[in-house]
This record gives sequence, structure tokens and C-alpha cells, in this order.
Amino acid sequence: MRILLTNDDGIYAPGLRALRAELQKLGEVIVVAPATEQSAVGHSITLLTPLLVQEVVDERGQFLGWAVEGRPADCVKLALLQLLPEPPDLIVSGLNAGSNAGINVLYSGTVAAAIEGAFFQRTSIAVSLEYIKPKLDFTRGAELARCVIEQILAHKPGPGTLFNVNIPSLDKGPIRGIRALPQNLVPYVEGFDRRVDPRGRVYFWTTPDFRCPDPHPDTDVTALGEGYITVTPLQFNLTHHGLLEQMSEWQWRL
Amino acid sequence: MRILLTNDDGIYAPGLRALRAELQKLGEVIVVAPATEQSAVGHSITLLTPLLVQEVVDERGQFLGWAVEGRPADCVKLALLQLLPEPPDLIVSGLNAGSNAGINVLYSGTVAAAIEGAFFQRTSIAVSLEYIKPKLDFTRGAELARCVIEQILAHKPGPGTLFNVNIPSLDKGPIRGIRALPQNLVPYVEGFDRRVDPRGRVYFWTTPDFRCPDPHPDTDVTALGEGYITVTPLQFNLTHHGLLEQMSEWQWRL
Repeated sequence: MRILLTNDDGIYAPGLRALRAELQKLGEVIVVAPATEQSAVGHSITLLTPLLVQEVVDERGQFLGWAVEGRPADCVKLALLQLLPEPPDLIVSGLNAGSNAGINVLYSGTVAAAIEGAFFQRTSIAVSLEYIKPKLDFTRGAELARCVIEQILAHKPGPGTLFNVNIPSLDKGPIRGIRALPQNLVPYVEGFDRRVDPRGRVYFWTTPDFRCPDPHPDTDVTALGEGYITVTPLQFNLTHHGLLEQMSEWQWRL
Repeated sequence: MRILLTNDDGIYAPGLRALRAELQKLGEVIVVAPATEQSAVGHSITLLTPLLVQEVVDERGQFLGWAVEGRPADCVKLALLQLLPEPPDLIVSGLNAGSNAGINVLYSGTVAAAIEGAFFQRTSIAVSLEYIKPKLDFTRGAELARCVIEQILAHKPGPGTLFNVNIPSLDKGPIRGIRALPQNLVPYVEGFDRRVDPRGRVYFWTTPDFRCPDPHPDTDVTALGEGYITVTPLQFNLTHHGLLEQMSEWQWRL
């Protein structure tokens, strides 16, 4: 099996390295990942600046893949259209430092890379590890990620099938199980910290305490909080078909 | 009616200025928009750098709103959580220079700003003008945008209702009508132009000829190409409910 591995934390991120080692148990892994951290870039792509590409070797001097001065979605496009000698059987994005559940799925560069893979009709899986304490156990997280990925592949998902996997922080105790659940749709509570710079200019920091005040039961956010690994199948059709149906009766004038 | 206007082309973009003039016919318009162009940034948000904010006046010296050194989605968050004295009745994003239809909806900063507005349960409308020739008629495009927005509002859309409006290039002749249609889901054909810099480093430019080779009939991409204004109601639930249903029978092991 040929696996394309990418992420949004950058090609030198420990989560990617740990996941690579695990995925090598499943097949040949080639990495095409951003040269630098790209968190919360969503489905950005690079149109107006050049995408510089450099070959990277691993700590043993073996070919790892390519670092791209661009976004996660750029990496997937470049990999499939230019860099890989053959199309991959699987695209994996991760292991992200921090969960990507609920509404945050839309902000996530990790998930966007997987969605981009689905555009190309590849089976694509985003994998994230919940971040509670600064010390993340990527080695154990990557083992769990591989365990989930193997089980997903055993069901022979069709072309372009897309999954978002979240692993709870391993500081919370033993994993309680694996659950397939929908994305939570209640927005997080966010805040800004207002400051004034020495020149009198106003600026804001986003505060780091994203909280989901009222997550729905039986969604990714809730189950992750309870210590389950969550697997959410995704799609990228944003049409609101219910409302479109109602709109069929609207009269328009120019 | 209080209207928040934003965009992804930046606060000094002519499309925003033209749309502001039209929206002022419907109510009070306050602009919170990126200080610089932010095309194809998708649903990026800014977590790690400060969001510098500056008041901006219009060409007549009247208060226009705030320029934010951030992404379109940041602008909506800051507007609703910090800058606006009262919540807006309507959020409009545009008038974008270039269409945002089909798969490109996922790359679009213009649409992401409207999706962010929907997170806050506001009626949100993204409006884009197809770009064929460099000279875009924003004045006429903004008139048409206001005409469509007025008709949408006449149907009293519920909280958090979200629409993506595309106006065909006015160089193609008279507008043929307005149609409510789903998002096209066939990816565009993209390409990269490979080059080598004077230091021997490889880089790629994305080529500008995004083409949608086989758009489905009765979708936004097709109708826009035929000269119709398209209105697509959107939602942001990415869960693939059909696949989730199948997955309820999967057995998981840890």
C-alpha cells in the first residue's frame, strides 16, 4: 500500500514523525508536508506566491519526502499532481497536536488536507491527538491512530471516502473505546484580549480557552471529552438541501 | 437594519466600496474587513499573531469601519465579539472579485466569512462577481447583489441562514435570470508550472486556468457559465450521515 502522509504542524513536527513510523507497518509512506507550522489555516491554498519544494531526509538519512512552503491543501495537490511517482492508495493527515472536533473541523488545516485528498477521490483520513498538557505522547497516539486506520481500511471504504479521527488526551486515563459519531455543531465560546501597543494602536489576541459550552450528546466533542476515540465520516457538500427545496417556490425578479 | 459588511479582497477593494453604497439603501452599514487581500484563505483564523485593528474613513471622511490585520473569519468574530456596538441583523461578504462556485466555495475567504456569521446565528450572505476580463463592473454588480439580497430578506430567512450568491461576468451580455441551485461537486482541473530558481531550488506556481471540465447540470457552476445569477443556500455540517449510518454496524477493537 502506498500512503501519502501530510499534516499542518509542519514536516518537522513530532506527531508526523511518530505517525510515519506506525504507518510504515502498513505500507510505503511518502511525506509531503508544509515546511512550517500552518495551524488553523483551514482550506487555504496558495495562488499568488511560489510553492518552494525541498527534499527532506529522516534522522537516519533515508528519504522522507518533500517540504512545501505552502498550506496543507497545497501539499496534497502538489503531491498528487507533481511529486509522487504513483497515486497513493491512502492519504493520512496528522498526527495533529490538538483535537479537531466540532466546529473547529472547519478551521483545521489537518482536516482540509484530507478533504483535498477526497477531491482527488482518494481515501483520506485526518488524525488528531487532544492537547491538554504540553507533553503529548505522540508515540502512543500514533499507535492508536494506526489501529483505527487499519480498522477503517478493513471495511474497504470507497474512493474519496473521508474520515476525521480524534484521539483523547492520554493524560486522562485509559481510552474508553472507539465511537463513530457526527460532528458537533454548537460553536465554541471564544474571546479576545484587547491591548494597546506602545504607539497607541489597538490590537487583539484570541484567547486560548476555546470551550464548547453545550456540546450535543453523541457527537465528537462530547465523546472525546469522555475519553473515547471518535471517528467521524465527512463530506464536503455544503449545499443546504432542505432550504434549497423550499427555495424552489421562490419567485425571482431582476 | 444593521448590516456588517466584510470581504476577503481587503477594506480598500472596489467591490466592497461599491457594495457598501448599495447596502446603505437597505440600512446602516459598518465595515470590518481585512487590511490586505486575503484571497483563497478559506476558513483560516489567526491564533498566534495579534489582530491589529484600525478605524478607517471613506472618501468623504465618514466612518467606514475597521481594518483588521487578519483573515475574513477573524473580522466577523472581532466585529461580533468586540467592535460592533450592537449585533447586526445581516452579515454580507463581498462583493468578491471572482466567482466562488463549486468546490472553490471551500477555498473561499469570502464564503468563510459568511459561514462564520452563521456560526453566530446571523443571516449571512456571500456575494461574488465572476471575473473574466480585468475590468469588473462593480457598480452594476453591486446593484444586482443588492437586488438579490433584498429578495432573500423578503423571505425572512431564519437565524444562521447562509447563502452564496454568484453574479456572472457582465461582459457576457445580459443576465438571464436568478436561479437557486446546489453547489457543483466536481473538482476543477488544476495545474502547476514547475520552475528552478537561480540557486537551483525547485518551485511551483499554481496556474491560473482553473477549469471545471464536467460541471453537473443544474448546479451553480453550470448556471453561472450560462449567464444566470446563482443563489446556493449553504450549511456547515460536514458529517457524512449516510456513511455514519453504515458505520453503526462496524465493530471496533482497541
